Amino acid sequence: MSDATATDLYEVTMAMSYLREGMTGPATFSLFVRALPPSRGFLVAAGLEQALDFLGAFRVGPEDVDAFAAALHRPRADLHPLLGLRFTGEARAVPEGRLVLADEPLLEVTAPLPVAQLVETYLLNQVSHQTAIASKAARCILAAAGHPLVDFSLRRTHGVRAGFHAARLGALVGFAGTSNVAAATALGVPAVGTMAHSFVEAFASEEEAFRAFARTHPGPVTFLVDTYDTERGTETAARVLRDLGRGPGSAIRLDSGDLGRLAARARGILDAAGLADVRVIVSGGLDEYDVDRLVRSGAPIDIYAVGTRVGVAADAPYLDSAYKLVAYDGRPVMKLSAKKATAPGPKQVFRHPGYADVVGLADEPVPGGARPLLETVMRDGRRVDAGGSQGRALAAARARFTADLAELPEDARRIEDPVAPRAVFSDRLSALTDRVRSGLSGG
Amino acid sequence: MSDATATDLYEVTMAMSYLREGMTGPATFSLFVRALPPSRGFLVAAGLEQALDFLGAFRVGPEDVDAFAAALHRPRADLHPLLGLRFTGEARAVPEGRLVLADEPLLEVTAPLPVAQLVETYLLNQVSHQTAIASKAARCILAAAGHPLVDFSLRRTHGVRAGFHAARLGALVGFAGTSNVAAATALGVPAVGTMAHSFVEAFASEEEAFRAFARTHPGPVTFLVDTYDTERGTETAARVLRDLGRGPGSAIRLDSGDLGRLAARARGILDAAGLADVRVIVSGGLDEYDVDRLVRSGAPIDIYAVGTRVGVAADAPYLDSAYKLVAYDGRPVMKLSAKKATAPGPKQVFRHPGYADVVGLADEPVPGGARPLLETVMRDGRRVDAGGSQGRALAAARARFTADLAELPEDARRIEDPVAPRAVFSDRLSALTDRVRSGLSGG
Repeated sequence: MSDATATDLYEVTMAMSYLREGMTGPATFSLFVRALPPSRGFLVAAGLEQALDFLGAFRVGPEDVDAFAAALHRPRADLHPLLGLRFTGEARAVPEGRLVLADEPLLEVTAPLPVAQLVETYLLNQVSHQTAIASKAARCILAAAGHPLVDFSLRRTHGVRAGFHAARLGALVGFAGTSNVAAATALGVPAVGTMAHSFVEAFASEEEAFRAFARTHPGPVTFLVDTYDTERGTETAARVLRDLGRGPGSAIRLDSGDLGRLAARARGILDAAGLADVRVIVSGGLDEYDVDRLVRSGAPIDIYAVGTRVGVAADAPYLDSAYKLVAYDGRPVMKLSAKKATAPGPKQVFRHPGYADVVGLADEPVPGGARPLLETVMRDGRRVDAGGSQGRALAAARARFTADLAELPEDARRIEDPVAPRAVFSDRLSALTDRVRSGLSGG
Repeated sequence: MSDATATDLYEVTMAMSYLREGMTGPATFSLFVRALPPSRGFLVAAGLEQALDFLGAFRVGPEDVDAFAAALHRPRADLHPLLGLRFTGEARAVPEGRLVLADEPLLEVTAPLPVAQLVETYLLNQVSHQTAIASKAARCILAAAGHPLVDFSLRRTHGVRAGFHAARLGALVGFAGTSNVAAATALGVPAVGTMAHSFVEAFASEEEAFRAFARTHPGPVTFLVDTYDTERGTETAARVLRDLGRGPGSAIRLDSGDLGRLAARARGILDAAGLADVRVIVSGGLDEYDVDRLVRSGAPIDIYAVGTRVGVAADAPYLDSAYKLVAYDGRPVMKLSAKKATAPGPKQVFRHPGYADVVGLADEPVPGGARPLLETVMRDGRRVDAGGSQGRALAAARARFTADLAELPEDARRIEDPVAPRAVFSDRLSALTDRVRSGLSGG
């Protein structure tokens, strides 16, 4: 089976009907987030790389057809019309790293209706999940206010693949490293991490553990100092580092207790030992709220390691995303369900300075002073930009993120109770919406 | 690269030190959850199947060594001692589906120290993530009070692999089906789902959409009735079902609005049309709180589809899990960090009736009337039970879950403000803890 079976069954039943009815005209679907979680002032577009990889490789093969037939208890012949379907359409998207708001399409796909439908579940999955995590990580960057951040989330993400993406998305927004070896290797980002409490416990004493570690690892080392008693641990670390002349570039890590207070004590102990260049790293279930509090308190912390809560976006682990049909065979389409109406037609987002965004129609002229956010990224089923290495794509996304973040209004940047800017509809989109709605209501 | 690189870097740096120091004696690590989320009255053990698959296949290959060397900026030769390491140890575990509480080991691994350390990240990832999702799904089973539940989560889980596990874990606790084709096929569970709003919108009218769908799909069909107006949609569905004689086994689905009220109206419309056997399915961001409310209200709903919030365990998307060294080379070991002390020694959980659980030492005799929860699942790096199909393992886990749930105290079963039973330590474990603690404090 290919990734084509990583789908909700209803995409298959719908595609079967479309094929039977000869409804294979071009359809445009728009993928967007209906409302931001209350704790978000913005979102960071992400997941596009995997979405495009999926579209480029999409093909319904014989094993997929077998799986569909089995799932539906239908003869294989009934599914035969799906065999060989590929994505031969167009995709327009907001590039990864760009900031987006509610109601702004992140991705628009145009393809023959059965195929545009079959790819829904996978596209929603990648874009929703990765945008949620990237947005959480971006808030850590805001909270850290220039202090380096590293990703320690792999042990509690929703699977190891989700851990890979947490590392990738941390790097996308500017994290300085990750503990995740597979991700660091694949992406060319620094791998970080040295020892766990279990290491210290495995030796007869903390000092013996530190000395053994230093024997194996030349150069800078990081000692975890809170296994038994943090202050005594720091004193022991200082003694070992000084004895061995290993201060420069080395660090101690605090993983429990009142980190602000303990960092101050540790800093004092290190400075008194002539180890002013030994850094203090903190970890232990931290998120952007903790980092913000610690940074504002002025605690002498050099590096923040964030983990679980960021890797699962604990306070907003999903987004209210949608993949909606907005045009079929040249006709704009919309849905009217209670509270979930969608505007019709292929769209563009026009960003005016200060995030005064206007969602308009894709064929509207770009208003003066505005910048369109969606770019054509696939044509005829192939990527427009052949792409480079994962590392290069990541660097480009990081540059976009950094530029967009710099212009974000202060209210949206707040860690506590942020206020997200809201996009408005263009006159033309509003007029089309009214026209389609009255046509539906009257029809 | 193999799954061996799906690890935090510090496992590698520690393993290197252990090998250099000749510390290759047997180590036991215990994987447990320190505290339950406030909204949980119990946990469902899960992730064990993937954990054991990982251990059975674990092997540090040449490409892994390359990745480790690159991550550490060390010559390949420095990593050579890790090449070829395999898991040749023992694993004891609580089988999947069993209910567990805070402080109760879900998995204990005994192996030469470097290997037992290297497998930490992956084991924590699988067991934490899957136990979190299974526990959320189990609460839906409680809330549904006998009504069938189906899984619609794939579009917003943290990647498609996480979606596969959400489907698997739903099936484990007794969901009747999943929308996920890949999971349904691999696990032999029913696949469910029929049409989206976009399907209805793609046709000139709702009625035309329903008729086209019925033409393609013989037998029972499910019509989504809330694209434009739910009551009119239900009337249209009733008309089409009656015209075509397709009532028996068919259903309508409500996906928005006040589901309890709309279900009552829909039921009335269907019954008046002589379609008493057409079922009402509800969906749309539901979790156990919504299901509980709807079931208690007596709304005439036949099937509940739960999705995103269950698939990401939205109110508790991670668990406070730990993988702690409890013995090395025959010596019990513990950690004393602030608020995170761990009890020493390999353990067993003795369950007395009514979830009066006692955490004791692995070599304690089983108290009268109690049942031990951990079983030996791997010996010499091989599974004790060679295992059958995924489907058979799932059925066995479901049987354990159903039996355990039936005995769970009422307080722990509550959807709102549940109270989890707390395990106590046995006298022997308490005595050992005191002995090791005083040895450490004095040392």
